[in-house]
Amino acid sequence: MTVRELAQQAKAASGKLAITSTKTRNDALLAMADALLSAAPEILAANAEDVKNAMLSGVKASYIDRLTLNQSRIEGMAGGLQKVAMLPDPIGRSDSVFVHQNGMRIEKRRVPLGVVGIIYEARPNVTADAIALCIKSGNACVLRGGSEAIRSNSTICDVLSSAAEQNGIPAGAIQLLRDTDRAAASEMMKLTGLIDVLIPRGGAGLIKSVVQQATVPVIETGSGVCHVYIDESADIKMATDIIENAKCSRPSVCNAAETLLVHANIASAALPEIAQRLTNRGVELRCDLRSKAFMPGSIDATEEDWSTEYGDLILSVKVVNSLSDAVQHIETYGTHHSDAIVTSSYSAAEQFQNEVNSAAVYVNASTRYTDGEEFGFGAEIGISTQKLHARGPMGLNELTTVKYAIRGTGQIR
Amino acid sequence: MTVRELAQQAKAASGKLAITSTKTRNDALLAMADALLSAAPEILAANAEDVKNAMLSGVKASYIDRLTLNQSRIEGMAGGLQKVAMLPDPIGRSDSVFVHQNGMRIEKRRVPLGVVGIIYEARPNVTADAIALCIKSGNACVLRGGSEAIRSNSTICDVLSSAAEQNGIPAGAIQLLRDTDRAAASEMMKLTGLIDVLIPRGGAGLIKSVVQQATVPVIETGSGVCHVYIDESADIKMATDIIENAKCSRPSVCNAAETLLVHANIASAALPEIAQRLTNRGVELRCDLRSKAFMPGSIDATEEDWSTEYGDLILSVKVVNSLSDAVQHIETYGTHHSDAIVTSSYSAAEQFQNEVNSAAVYVNASTRYTDGEEFGFGAEIGISTQKLHARGPMGLNELTTVKYAIRGTGQIR
Repeated sequence: MTVRELAQQAKAASGKLAITSTKTRNDALLAMADALLSAAPEILAANAEDVKNAMLSGVKASYIDRLTLNQSRIEGMAGGLQKVAMLPDPIGRSDSVFVHQNGMRIEKRRVPLGVVGIIYEARPNVTADAIALCIKSGNACVLRGGSEAIRSNSTICDVLSSAAEQNGIPAGAIQLLRDTDRAAASEMMKLTGLIDVLIPRGGAGLIKSVVQQATVPVIETGSGVCHVYIDESADIKMATDIIENAKCSRPSVCNAAETLLVHANIASAALPEIAQRLTNRGVELRCDLRSKAFMPGSIDATEEDWSTEYGDLILSVKVVNSLSDAVQHIETYGTHHSDAIVTSSYSAAEQFQNEVNSAAVYVNASTRYTDGEEFGFGAEIGISTQKLHARGPMGLNELTTVKYAIRGTGQIR
Repeated sequence: MTVRELAQQAKAASGKLAITSTKTRNDALLAMADALLSAAPEILAANAEDVKNAMLSGVKASYIDRLTLNQSRIEGMAGGLQKVAMLPDPIGRSDSVFVHQNGMRIEKRRVPLGVVGIIYEARPNVTADAIALCIKSGNACVLRGGSEAIRSNSTICDVLSSAAEQNGIPAGAIQLLRDTDRAAASEMMKLTGLIDVLIPRGGAGLIKSVVQQATVPVIETGSGVCHVYIDESADIKMATDIIENAKCSRPSVCNAAETLLVHANIASAALPEIAQRLTNRGVELRCDLRSKAFMPGSIDATEEDWSTEYGDLILSVKVVNSLSDAVQHIETYGTHHSDAIVTSSYSAAEQFQNEVNSAAVYVNASTRYTDGEEFGFGAEIGISTQKLHARGPMGLNELTTVKYAIRGTGQIR
């Protein structure tokens, strides 16, 4: 089947899927979780082949770790499906009803987007997560995973798709590109009219490539050059705890901090303590001239460092003369993902939160909280760093659009 | 100034504009309305030159009419500015506040998009309308109007921009491309990072060109192949009134009907009456084989007719065997703008409203109501026919995005 044919099947299914009941979709998700558990031996066998081939091609150990499934990871995927089944249905409710003076009722109703395209990298568990969120929100999906995980993804998709069909989900609603050529992915990005939105999930390279090639609307996700700014009035212990957490608790994720900005008036008091704490955690410090003096063992930052998402135990550090300079730095070098101020000043907190133009702006808390679960959405399909449609963590509601349903009695204008 | 420099100035102003108070923006809008009225002689002089040149180039009379300003049209523009000043401010309010179990308050706050790009055709009043909606919603704007209206647009923009600046709006917030070359417009469409969204307003050709060229996210607007479907259970008088209104009340607008679908069981009873009513209004009827028999004086429809937005007193007509066939036709040929069913059947109404995948789906009312004013938004920047970000009429709220403002007391994960 060509890429276009896959998408046509998804589109044909999407109309029927959009009008399935909440119970049908929830029951199907539970059945899909059971099917995944029953098929664990097949999935593990397919995954073992993927892992073997990846090892032969000599990729990094961290990559192999992301690719590898085991019984507990399969149970995790099944648990994810069950959990999504239990979340509130985002479809069918009305955001508002307006009654026109002529008596017509104008209802703004939540409906599925239609067909969601997801392009992602090696983690096979994304396959199950993405399918769960799409089915729950009444969307058909076209998935394109990495070539290294093709056997795992195909098996997971076959198992889930077949269980879905047997439980009232229209055939064709779940599609996977089995052709992992770049050309097939490029074709997918241009299927305007068949795919309603593309969500890339992965590294900066993948996301940039999708944004540049796609004619289908894209929701940009996940690129995070996040900052912690220590105001002159900050509690140094709190600031140290926050930057340690924002940098070290999970350095590979997009809400981890990459740059520490420190007000000049507190630099000499705060930076030596912070340097010690971070060095103990194995963090490499890349400093500007003024911060370097207070951070023994640090190296010089280059211009490039300020806009780099390390995804690793590396932190760039800069001393600034004012809160406005900190805001200016964040606006210039940041990706508008998540930024935090540590302060005891009411006016500094207000100014920072008003002026920093990011999806999530924190006062006295770690940037690591930018996450669908932490924000109470129950699940997350990604973190949008663009302003259109969705911004910040995207849950089920962000996989919907609206339809105006108007009921009259013969009104004309 | 280059296009990029214009956009950079707009972006620099947007940060300051985003944090102006409601009162500042409203007072500025009122002062801008006064300035427009005071500058009427200058604006009319500039417009007279535009009109003279357009006449020399031999364009259509309807085009000249859209281009021409007079005292009453200038008063209309000023009235529009005053009206927008009186609308509720879409900025700063919170859609929701979630309290994390650790005590952090996570506030979802409405903020401006930033810089809005608007590309439009010959009507100079769009200049004032677009500026009013952008300033009210805290957005800077970069406008690109048609070359035929450049003198009118430049004068209106100068007057409004200068009044805005004198009344607390940051300098540079209102920008107009004075270079009306296609190359300049193309450059504008690629200013990712400087312009946050592009809204094209105009004919299908303009919109298609923007969607294809732009790398900046686009909100597609205004393309409307709208349908009225007469169900077998319809009241024929109501159906006739609705199709007459949907076709004839203003045939040039996007919410006008282009195609009439009629259930086979009511065709012989309904179509002769409808043909007579529409023929009396000067409508040309383009019919399929079955409807032609009941509509004297009609001509044969071609395949192309079903997907054509006439914008004129022309209607295509088709007999269908069932409601499902009507839905299928609408999904195949429509633009998902506005579609209506006329019926007395509860289940037909439900099915049509659930299955037709359009921005506005009507039961027993004219498609002509799809409009920001009619939907209670107070003003409209366009009608979105895409699913991302906004769908249907876009008011001030659709010119905003969200920011999560999180307040903690030192929380770490």
